[in-house]
Amino acid sequence: VANTTITRTSGQVRIVGAGLLGASIGLGLAERGIDVVLADASRAGLGLAIDYGAGRAARVDDDPSLILVAVPPDAAASVVAAELTAFPRATVTDVTSVKVAVQAELEASGVELSRYVGSHPLAGRERGGAISARADLFTGRPWVVCPRPGLAADRIAAVEHLALDLHATPVELDAAAHDAAVALVSHAPQVISSLMAKRLDGAPPSALGLAGQGVRDVTRIAASDPELWVQILAANASAVAEILRGLRADLDDTIAALTDVEAAGSRRTIAQELAGGNVGVASLPGKHGQDLRFASVVVRVDDTPGELGRLFGELGDIGVNIEDLRLEHSPGAQFGLAEIAVMPEVRTRTVDDLTARGWSIVG
Amino acid sequence: VANTTITRTSGQVRIVGAGLLGASIGLGLAERGIDVVLADASRAGLGLAIDYGAGRAARVDDDPSLILVAVPPDAAASVVAAELTAFPRATVTDVTSVKVAVQAELEASGVELSRYVGSHPLAGRERGGAISARADLFTGRPWVVCPRPGLAADRIAAVEHLALDLHATPVELDAAAHDAAVALVSHAPQVISSLMAKRLDGAPPSALGLAGQGVRDVTRIAASDPELWVQILAANASAVAEILRGLRADLDDTIAALTDVEAAGSRRTIAQELAGGNVGVASLPGKHGQDLRFASVVVRVDDTPGELGRLFGELGDIGVNIEDLRLEHSPGAQFGLAEIAVMPEVRTRTVDDLTARGWSIVG
Repeated sequence: VANTTITRTSGQVRIVGAGLLGASIGLGLAERGIDVVLADASRAGLGLAIDYGAGRAARVDDDPSLILVAVPPDAAASVVAAELTAFPRATVTDVTSVKVAVQAELEASGVELSRYVGSHPLAGRERGGAISARADLFTGRPWVVCPRPGLAADRIAAVEHLALDLHATPVELDAAAHDAAVALVSHAPQVISSLMAKRLDGAPPSALGLAGQGVRDVTRIAASDPELWVQILAANASAVAEILRGLRADLDDTIAALTDVEAAGSRRTIAQELAGGNVGVASLPGKHGQDLRFASVVVRVDDTPGELGRLFGELGDIGVNIEDLRLEHSPGAQFGLAEIAVMPEVRTRTVDDLTARGWSIVG
Repeated sequence: VANTTITRTSGQVRIVGAGLLGASIGLGLAERGIDVVLADASRAGLGLAIDYGAGRAARVDDDPSLILVAVPPDAAASVVAAELTAFPRATVTDVTSVKVAVQAELEASGVELSRYVGSHPLAGRERGGAISARADLFTGRPWVVCPRPGLAADRIAAVEHLALDLHATPVELDAAAHDAAVALVSHAPQVISSLMAKRLDGAPPSALGLAGQGVRDVTRIAASDPELWVQILAANASAVAEILRGLRADLDDTIAALTDVEAAGSRRTIAQELAGGNVGVASLPGKHGQDLRFASVVVRVDDTPGELGRLFGELGDIGVNIEDLRLEHSPGAQFGLAEIAVMPEVRTRTVDDLTARGWSIVG
């Protein structure tokens, strides 16, 4: 879908840490024919990522122009320092989800940092490891680049080119602004999701059986790896704590209002908290769950075997590629709705051609 | 999909309140040919639900055997009382998401309650109103029935039959157990989602631009209607407050640990909270996002026009109906994965037949 013909990254790329992020970056670069070298402290982890097609094992004559350090936060600074020393020509970036602490630790180490560019691709999955890696993990996602003052433009460009080659969007932020931002949109939500999920532990099965999509969504990321997240939260502790203190003040007000709900002002307090949540969630850019790269066509499909096949066959006849699709299916109803994502430039033609062939387009 | 040939509900059904729940119930019953009478304080809301096919307007000679009250919590008890008086033969149930408060208000009103059965279908959507109604809203969801002690079995059965006719699963719980359960799996998550979302209000666009699926999931239900939720939370205030107090204690510990993260025990405290979240989320029954009624077949599909059409055409040839589907599509990759949901009893045949036709089944 995205333009894969222009590759901006040149030379060899070395990736240290063959987990979810490292292996996904390797897959995306290997697809472009880039020589990707993988290294990992775990031989089993390395072997899996290589089998998966994310790169090759290191050789003594490797000469990478770009090195990505994709290891847990506690190890990031020391691995970056070691790579800067071992490969005196290469630009080195890390993909750690905190930036101030890594940068401070590097500065304290005394290593020369003119080739270091901190960065952070905002991408991930609940499941970690190379086995969950995918070449398109970064597509459409921001990739924050945090250059230290005075850094040479070609070092910054090397990381931005990498991000673009992986279909991510480079975003320049200083390290402190980055850490405050991810404390708000990633780290505090992780804590809150975990604390809510912890309440479910030990609940009677009759209560858990009533759980619907709401509590599942609120607690989904509570399944994340505690070992990794302790490192992330510890490395960004003060920014996260500040947000949680603000939330605790609202929680205190809410608990007080619920404890004496008939008192004057109690309902107003609760309503204000809920309305504040309305405003906050509406401030998130983009529509939930919708891929903004594509246009949507909703087609009514009779609930009989072969009807979807006929629809997709005709889309093939028309020459329209289906980028994504979702079926809304009402058991007991006589028809369902197929929501098809297509490239925006073919939407009008798709609607016209399907209508001409007798399909009912409902959205 | 579900068996729609046996209809258990007999006689006329009257629905008071033509919002999301009322209109969805009406749609589901009207599909079965049941005479559904709709009433709503808003003429516009009533007209919309009737246009939508959820039932017909009331007539003076109506004689319902079952009445569903689907109005906001603050109005529920008084509407139930009025319906019991107006229709001296009918079983009356309400679908309010709190049960103790409604029951207590009815008992205090002095109305004779031998025909009243409280109930609560655990179903909903972010968007309210008849326009969001769907006949399958209750499919596979629990429908809690809270009979008062000594209630006649045929009154309970009338509500259970209604739930079964809408493909829901009747669950008997007493009112207090119900309210404690929904405080945990619905009301407290709503508050927590709203409080987290409220933190996003006023954040710089550069921070909000980094938001990913995690914070979107945690805050999705923060878009819910504050007016409705104030009523729900107020009606279940003590049970919700109790859960929030437990969460606040954990939040206090987490904030303290983050405030002095290098102190002995701080990392252990954070790790314990995160691990507790792991255990809690794992205690939710079923797999997230997966519809447990169906079996899944994952097929590798080349990324060329017509390939999905060929797959679905062949599924039609085989005679397999597609209950749901999801396409995992990697831009830049040479193929995608189509995850097809089929009835469990046809999964083996589907895999065998597709394999014989040369498709690669990867899951």
